Amino acid sequence: MKINSLNVDLGERAYPIHIGSGLLGRPDLVIPHLAGRQLLIVSNETVAPLYLARTRALFAGFNVEEVILPDGEQYKTLDVLNTIFDALLEKHCDRRVTLVALGGGVVGDMTGFAAACYQRGVAFIQIPTTLLAQVDSSVGGKTGVNHPLGKNMIGAFHQPRCVLIDTDTLDTLPDCELSAGLAEVIKYGLIRDPAFFAWLEENMDALLARDKAALAEAIERSCRNKAEVVAADEREGGVRALLNLGHTFGHAIETGMGYGAWLHGEGVAAGMLMAAALSARLGWLSAAELARIEALLLRARLPVRGPRDLSTERMLELMAVDKKAQDGQVRLVLLRALGAGIVTADYAPALLRDIIDQYRAA
Amino acid sequence: MKINSLNVDLGERAYPIHIGSGLLGRPDLVIPHLAGRQLLIVSNETVAPLYLARTRALFAGFNVEEVILPDGEQYKTLDVLNTIFDALLEKHCDRRVTLVALGGGVVGDMTGFAAACYQRGVAFIQIPTTLLAQVDSSVGGKTGVNHPLGKNMIGAFHQPRCVLIDTDTLDTLPDCELSAGLAEVIKYGLIRDPAFFAWLEENMDALLARDKAALAEAIERSCRNKAEVVAADEREGGVRALLNLGHTFGHAIETGMGYGAWLHGEGVAAGMLMAAALSARLGWLSAAELARIEALLLRARLPVRGPRDLSTERMLELMAVDKKAQDGQVRLVLLRALGAGIVTADYAPALLRDIIDQYRAA
Repeated sequence: MKINSLNVDLGERAYPIHIGSGLLGRPDLVIPHLAGRQLLIVSNETVAPLYLARTRALFAGFNVEEVILPDGEQYKTLDVLNTIFDALLEKHCDRRVTLVALGGGVVGDMTGFAAACYQRGVAFIQIPTTLLAQVDSSVGGKTGVNHPLGKNMIGAFHQPRCVLIDTDTLDTLPDCELSAGLAEVIKYGLIRDPAFFAWLEENMDALLARDKAALAEAIERSCRNKAEVVAADEREGGVRALLNLGHTFGHAIETGMGYGAWLHGEGVAAGMLMAAALSARLGWLSAAELARIEALLLRARLPVRGPRDLSTERMLELMAVDKKAQDGQVRLVLLRALGAGIVTADYAPALLRDIIDQYRAA
Repeated sequence: MKINSLNVDLGERAYPIHIGSGLLGRPDLVIPHLAGRQLLIVSNETVAPLYLARTRALFAGFNVEEVILPDGEQYKTLDVLNTIFDALLEKHCDRRVTLVALGGGVVGDMTGFAAACYQRGVAFIQIPTTLLAQVDSSVGGKTGVNHPLGKNMIGAFHQPRCVLIDTDTLDTLPDCELSAGLAEVIKYGLIRDPAFFAWLEENMDALLARDKAALAEAIERSCRNKAEVVAADEREGGVRALLNLGHTFGHAIETGMGYGAWLHGEGVAAGMLMAAALSARLGWLSAAELARIEALLLRARLPVRGPRDLSTERMLELMAVDKKAQDGQVRLVLLRALGAGIVTADYAPALLRDIIDQYRAA
């Protein structure tokens, strides 16, 4: 079995990411990263029946507890987070416990946040089982929960000790979630890696057919892109903001439609096309480039229009509370060229309104 | 007006502490530390009627919002924390908001934790109005909330930008809370500053009479002691643990009796005497020294016995979940000498049980 490994270079918080088939059978990759004998695996109702037994076996000989959360973005709340704290305290877990996130982005974000806060910080390991979590949320240490008034508004930066990506877990991923993950994959091409964008145009059919080699390559190239950005800017003072391409639009869609109605990647896909369309209006992308982006998103079976039921007014209102807003002004990630993102607040508000209007489903 | 100022030396997270009479009338000391135009003052029902107007005036010309929490340790919960997030989001506060904690330790800990988590970290300023918060919780960046199964189990390290201590706020402090603060003051003498312990023996009457000069000196010497410890060990890897003298016992009392029944400083006082008694049994303190410690605590009108209604068994159980426990073994802060704390797990469990038995109220 070939293992692709990379390192997220964050000084004393550096950690490895291992990618490959069958890695849930490789305790040697994770055991060295445990803080002590106690472990708490956090998973959800969908993933646990599929992979919990194998994950427990990975840590044979350790004191392994578990907590199973309900599945879905609508459960990424302070209340559900508290059930992780309940489990940690009921099991008398001390400061040397290691939390293990087994699941998608919601499980990873909540487990990481619980690890950041429990006794003011304990170790955690990520075992992401969705493409989205593998290429995005498991890299970079952003953790947190949602608030009814805004996504990911409550959280912390907390780096995992290790990320283990077993590509076999993608065998059980629903089609819509594979597509949602591809939205973030395409994002890396758009903001900083035009060669990867071209590779994706070549290999989209293989990815949709779940070709293992193609998936492993897409995951590794995505993680490398994200790891480079995060290493340059851990706390999002600058370049890291580029990773939010489409997210200000996407979060507004997710919040406005009610968490769980749209998948995160679906909101991001529609949002990325809005950002690309705005960039085209500003003269930074050609009509042909905009068409290439829309075509690739459509081939990945992603939505390229916002929801009909969310008014332009409400979208703008929700976008204004985004974390990237400063003193009321919404900064957006746009594309200075295909493969080159830029963060800017330098656009006419009327233009933004126009684009949202135009890119809403009829 | 004389101002005593000191600096907590934490590199890029360094911050000043200003101590003196009338400082709520000195905007020049705090304005330079604001992150932007938006502020949210967090206070409680007891303190707000006394000092909120003056605090708002301190920030005249800024966009100042407020949120008033219920008063008491029993409200230091995730649920009440969420009301701070509600206010931040309802008021559209962005990343450049500055939170201002106006109140005692509970308000400070919760405001600091909200600042640590809101949008993954925003600025905050401490304006502590109780002696306990002034000498303890406002220095060092420990923030958090309680869990029904353990005190301060959920939290973060997050340093304030500035601490403003107006000693005039002590005029309105109830006697029992003045005493509770003195418990932590005495602690600094016990763990690392024998000269300060002797000074406290000399000046306890002046402190209880609320002599301003004596209080300012006690606060400054306490803050200096804590600042030195925190600067040497920000994340409590070593020497910082000494600050927990009496706290493992005290937290067990607080948790066991229900949050709010015993003041934090009261639990710490009884706990410190248990730790001192255990140290005397180990031959580290003389009977005369133990008597001096008990006498000083009594003069400060503090309890020197644990609650009758909390069984020794239950105390031991609650102590076992303390954050300082590792793999089930409870480490305690004891006194190697009067003025020299030590962290150790090297004592016979039966001895600990004996001491708790002996130091429970009849």
